[in-house]
Amino acid sequence: MPPEPGPLDYRQAGVDIDAGDALVAAIGKSVAATHGPEVLRGLGHFGGFFRIGPVGSGATLVASADGVGTKLKVAVLAGRHHGIGADIVNHCVNDILACGASPLFFLDYFATGSLDPEIGATVINSIAETCKELGVALLGGETAEMPGIYQTGDYDLAGFIVGMVAEDEIVDGSAIQQDDLIFGLPSDGFHTNGYSLVRAALGLNGDVETARERLGSDVAYTAGLTLAEALLQPHRCYLQDVRTLLQLGVIRGMAHVTGGGIPGNVSRVVPEGLTAAIDAGSWSPPPIFEYVTERGHINPEEAFRVFNMGIGFVFVCDPAHARVVRNAAPDAVKIGSVQAGSNGKRVQLLGL
Amino acid sequence: MPPEPGPLDYRQAGVDIDAGDALVAAIGKSVAATHGPEVLRGLGHFGGFFRIGPVGSGATLVASADGVGTKLKVAVLAGRHHGIGADIVNHCVNDILACGASPLFFLDYFATGSLDPEIGATVINSIAETCKELGVALLGGETAEMPGIYQTGDYDLAGFIVGMVAEDEIVDGSAIQQDDLIFGLPSDGFHTNGYSLVRAALGLNGDVETARERLGSDVAYTAGLTLAEALLQPHRCYLQDVRTLLQLGVIRGMAHVTGGGIPGNVSRVVPEGLTAAIDAGSWSPPPIFEYVTERGHINPEEAFRVFNMGIGFVFVCDPAHARVVRNAAPDAVKIGSVQAGSNGKRVQLLGL
Repeated sequence: MPPEPGPLDYRQAGVDIDAGDALVAAIGKSVAATHGPEVLRGLGHFGGFFRIGPVGSGATLVASADGVGTKLKVAVLAGRHHGIGADIVNHCVNDILACGASPLFFLDYFATGSLDPEIGATVINSIAETCKELGVALLGGETAEMPGIYQTGDYDLAGFIVGMVAEDEIVDGSAIQQDDLIFGLPSDGFHTNGYSLVRAALGLNGDVETARERLGSDVAYTAGLTLAEALLQPHRCYLQDVRTLLQLGVIRGMAHVTGGGIPGNVSRVVPEGLTAAIDAGSWSPPPIFEYVTERGHINPEEAFRVFNMGIGFVFVCDPAHARVVRNAAPDAVKIGSVQAGSNGKRVQLLGL
Repeated sequence: MPPEPGPLDYRQAGVDIDAGDALVAAIGKSVAATHGPEVLRGLGHFGGFFRIGPVGSGATLVASADGVGTKLKVAVLAGRHHGIGADIVNHCVNDILACGASPLFFLDYFATGSLDPEIGATVINSIAETCKELGVALLGGETAEMPGIYQTGDYDLAGFIVGMVAEDEIVDGSAIQQDDLIFGLPSDGFHTNGYSLVRAALGLNGDVETARERLGSDVAYTAGLTLAEALLQPHRCYLQDVRTLLQLGVIRGMAHVTGGGIPGNVSRVVPEGLTAAIDAGSWSPPPIFEYVTERGHINPEEAFRVFNMGIGFVFVCDPAHARVVRNAAPDAVKIGSVQAGSNGKRVQLLGL
């Protein structure tokens, strides 16, 4: 497999984060204008909050919408669709979990150019199986056949989840204090982010047969898996671990590490005047990350901005609870601490 | 504009309803397996029901997911994106309204190959404006830039809505009785269904410049509008009319006329052993329907199976309430009545 010309970045791979930011800025006012007093916390969190119970402590619905991104392109090339259901459900569950909410129900949107009932059934049954395992009701969905929009074999998949939390149990990071500890939970590969850059780095966007051959080959880095298997590892679900920690009452803030990576997501929950100082040397990203970043000559800052780099979920605790955390979540790795001062950004990534 | 070869049907236009049915059959069991006692009514309704309050009369959430379909292709060709937000919000609001629910909040999924922040903002601001008018919170959403999946300029848009209804106020058609009257509320054109057939019938799938020229020309049938304007009339919202009728307590069943047309949707709410006898001669479909069906040589059965044919929402009432209905919803047209016997299908379309 010849190395790609580099260094590659997300914009060259076709994803323009600045365009996304411009869009968010252009819609903020009109979106906020739809929010009455039952909408709590506004925009920018991992889920949207809608209070249906009494003010102060009442039941609050938490909702989130997400997609699988161009991981779908890898699934289509490899003809492996079974993990995609776990990807979208787990992504959505983790998002509202990061707000402290337990999932109630899920709906999907599956769109394709020409409906192949077998592939559609594989994807939606895998959604149902994941929902079943997690105790989430698959309450509905939409299947759209849209000739002329999707190319043959391609499809898109979005998910929508609703969960619940008591208003006084919402976790939004506002409880985070100086000297708190920052823990990370390991990811299973790229989850559902950064695949446009992964595909560009691995040369999967050109000739289909060449791309298929690459995906079918074993990759020394990935411990006996084919490249397709390594890239299509489903998004990991953190519900079990985090629910235990929530019940123990030891969590002060959480971030689901999706688009934007650790800096882009942890910064969403760190209060003004504090910085999450994260030591990138405190864990080793799984070899697949090194493989992709080397292939694409992707520089470390860009890799950490686009990929989860081996940490799929971050939570913040009082140092007094370190032992409790270690017992309840043995997978958790201490990756940093909260420090005074913010210096314009709320995350400092050390040791790159 | 030369007439297209005909007669055209939905399958020839690239939409295979049988494939959709096969998919639904293949996922039914695994989806049902995710349903605990809080999921009411199962699948097949206009929304999914999730009870969060006490059994019997408690608060029940009603959720639905939908897309705009290939009406988007017309919007992209014409460069007119402002109505698309109303399309998706109104479609979703009508769906849960047909279950008796009032909307609480909405989320969108906007996916494109290369994000144009201006078009994205036009679409999402139009979603926000429609939400604001209807008193629905736009609680969140996802914008996905997916190079390689969408062609330049194309995008897809899905919507997710959550509303609420008391369990004992759910409207599911089970109250419908013999001799009940069936009323229709007028649509504003094709709403968000059947556009693949519309596009094929009007020859909009070939050369882009030719298609743009056709869309820009005035059409005698459409009263001074260009073809683009006629085709892009937003999906009408029935919240106002229907809410009044619900408050009056005169509705026994409702159907939102989307994919599947009047027969496909009214049949979802007619109880076993009864037939909705609908007289297609009791209203005149707006001229745009005649224009498209003539151009595509679409036979009337197919047209009624794919298009709403001028009736966007159907409701069923006790004949004793006819006068109340006429006063409260002066737009409503009596289109049929409920008769004994079902003869294998629950809708009989007369006078085609």
